[in-house]
Amino acid sequence: MRAIIVNKEKKRAELVERPVPEPGPGEVRVRIRCAALNHRDLWILQGQYPGIRDGVILGSDGAGTVDACGEGVYSQWLNKPVVINPSLNWGENPHHQSDQYQILGNPRDGTFAEYLVIPIENVYEKPEHLSWEEAAALPLAGLTAYRALFIRGGLHPGESVLITGIGGGVALLALQMAVQVGARVWVTSSQTQKIQRAIQMGAEGGFLYTDPQWVQTARKQMGMIDLVIDGASGPSVAAYCELVKPGGRIVIYGQTAGKIQDFSTARLFYRQQAILGSTMGSPHDFERMLTFWSKTKMRPIVDSVYAVTDYEQAFARMQSGEQFGKIVLGF
Amino acid sequence: MRAIIVNKEKKRAELVERPVPEPGPGEVRVRIRCAALNHRDLWILQGQYPGIRDGVILGSDGAGTVDACGEGVYSQWLNKPVVINPSLNWGENPHHQSDQYQILGNPRDGTFAEYLVIPIENVYEKPEHLSWEEAAALPLAGLTAYRALFIRGGLHPGESVLITGIGGGVALLALQMAVQVGARVWVTSSQTQKIQRAIQMGAEGGFLYTDPQWVQTARKQMGMIDLVIDGASGPSVAAYCELVKPGGRIVIYGQTAGKIQDFSTARLFYRQQAILGSTMGSPHDFERMLTFWSKTKMRPIVDSVYAVTDYEQAFARMQSGEQFGKIVLGF
Repeated sequence: MRAIIVNKEKKRAELVERPVPEPGPGEVRVRIRCAALNHRDLWILQGQYPGIRDGVILGSDGAGTVDACGEGVYSQWLNKPVVINPSLNWGENPHHQSDQYQILGNPRDGTFAEYLVIPIENVYEKPEHLSWEEAAALPLAGLTAYRALFIRGGLHPGESVLITGIGGGVALLALQMAVQVGARVWVTSSQTQKIQRAIQMGAEGGFLYTDPQWVQTARKQMGMIDLVIDGASGPSVAAYCELVKPGGRIVIYGQTAGKIQDFSTARLFYRQQAILGSTMGSPHDFERMLTFWSKTKMRPIVDSVYAVTDYEQAFARMQSGEQFGKIVLGF
Repeated sequence: MRAIIVNKEKKRAELVERPVPEPGPGEVRVRIRCAALNHRDLWILQGQYPGIRDGVILGSDGAGTVDACGEGVYSQWLNKPVVINPSLNWGENPHHQSDQYQILGNPRDGTFAEYLVIPIENVYEKPEHLSWEEAAALPLAGLTAYRALFIRGGLHPGESVLITGIGGGVALLALQMAVQVGARVWVTSSQTQKIQRAIQMGAEGGFLYTDPQWVQTARKQMGMIDLVIDGASGPSVAAYCELVKPGGRIVIYGQTAGKIQDFSTARLFYRQQAILGSTMGSPHDFERMLTFWSKTKMRPIVDSVYAVTDYEQAFARMQSGEQFGKIVLGF
């Protein structure tokens, strides 16, 4: 089978031939139809995580059909269209993952291959209304967004939320879910065009975070808000405390903008605010996320679809930061 | 009556004569027996808050006997020994204070006087087992510590907690309450002697935060902990994330050490940690705090007691940072 693997020494991805894997007890084999890229894949290539396995098949997001069942798996699963939950070994505690936690795609072989072997508990029936491309776009970013918004952020209908860095996978899925539950949503971006598209999707407005006055503008337009969903960290976190109401929450799921600097905690404590870290989600979170998208018949935004042979272009597109929605590979 | 007021221009306290105030409708007059100092009083003198009223009587903490009741207050209150809740106009929402919120002692005249007029809802029966000095030591710091530990921090018996800056009023009362509920408690200080006293009070150990290796030492001795209670902020907040377990909490109620710098959020989100701001507390929090001290018969630590005429020495003691426990004024 064809598979996209990590060449650790050269810090790049390679398309290679690999034997089709066999499912062990409690596992199934999925014939992958589409997979989707995450920043995580780039960071693995760049060697930014510890413990990267040379030659590992990349990829956390995938959808396809079950084509073989290992011992102890009901054969009713055969030929079922499924999506993959990329959270492995979350553990028993809903509040945080266990020490054994892994994300699919390193060190365990991931979804960028024609076939994937995966424990049956990580396989969920594909929402019928989604195409293969859309189904592959949902798992990792949808799970992260769902947990950040609802489990950690506790978003309620009618509340107001600022979603930063719109255009990224997590931010866009968070936007769609927040609009769907009746929240008032604003966004930030470095590109006017992305803000315009977010408004078309139901955001009330947006702010160019490259504008030194954006916080004052945002304060005027939004008033004080209940929640911030942020994957950037960096110096803006201090600004979020200015924008968030007493009792409000700031959920952080990443730090693409680097460390927090010059952060006065006076507003944080005087306003009884909370800064809540969030990453990925539990199996229960995944199930609720999937149910949400099935019931509402929403579709995740797909930026572009590449044939597996064009994987280098797909990675380049992600690296450019130009995408709006998920970048998908077809197998 | 004698009262200690703010001379705004000279940025200092002055002992003056003032007319005895009369309680209005819904108010009582309390003959203050003891009052206690807070850092807030120093900061008001130094002009570090907006809206300081020149000539305001200082003081948030006090205990005494009701000696006059305004219209609409049951006369059963007359001669009752009481403690004062310094939280005014908290409002309806238990999660945060309202826009009208004030702390007693500016702009409303405070407890550093022979008589105080205060709304009846801010007056609570003094726990019988406490002396006047101890009762005066409890309100502001006890309320802050109670909310930080239990309401925001969600401390459970058997959990482990690091309380920073032991010796301060809030930190010490938090230590006493945490030990009482069966938590495992560690402390930090810049003074070995304060750590020794904390251990005598039930802490398992402590760390000199002036030691550049303190975080590694703490990690070895404590293992990973559930909760940090911190009134300092500053660069150490990054270290707290190293010490706190997945799903753990860091409660911040002050920033005597300044702004947070160089703070990587990677542990915060990967470990699903939370940084929770907390200040003061609701009337319900105050009532529960007082009940806790009444039921357990614990006594707050009083560092020293000064006659009202020695108020300058009392302020100097607070300024020195040498105290261990509350500094009390007798009226």
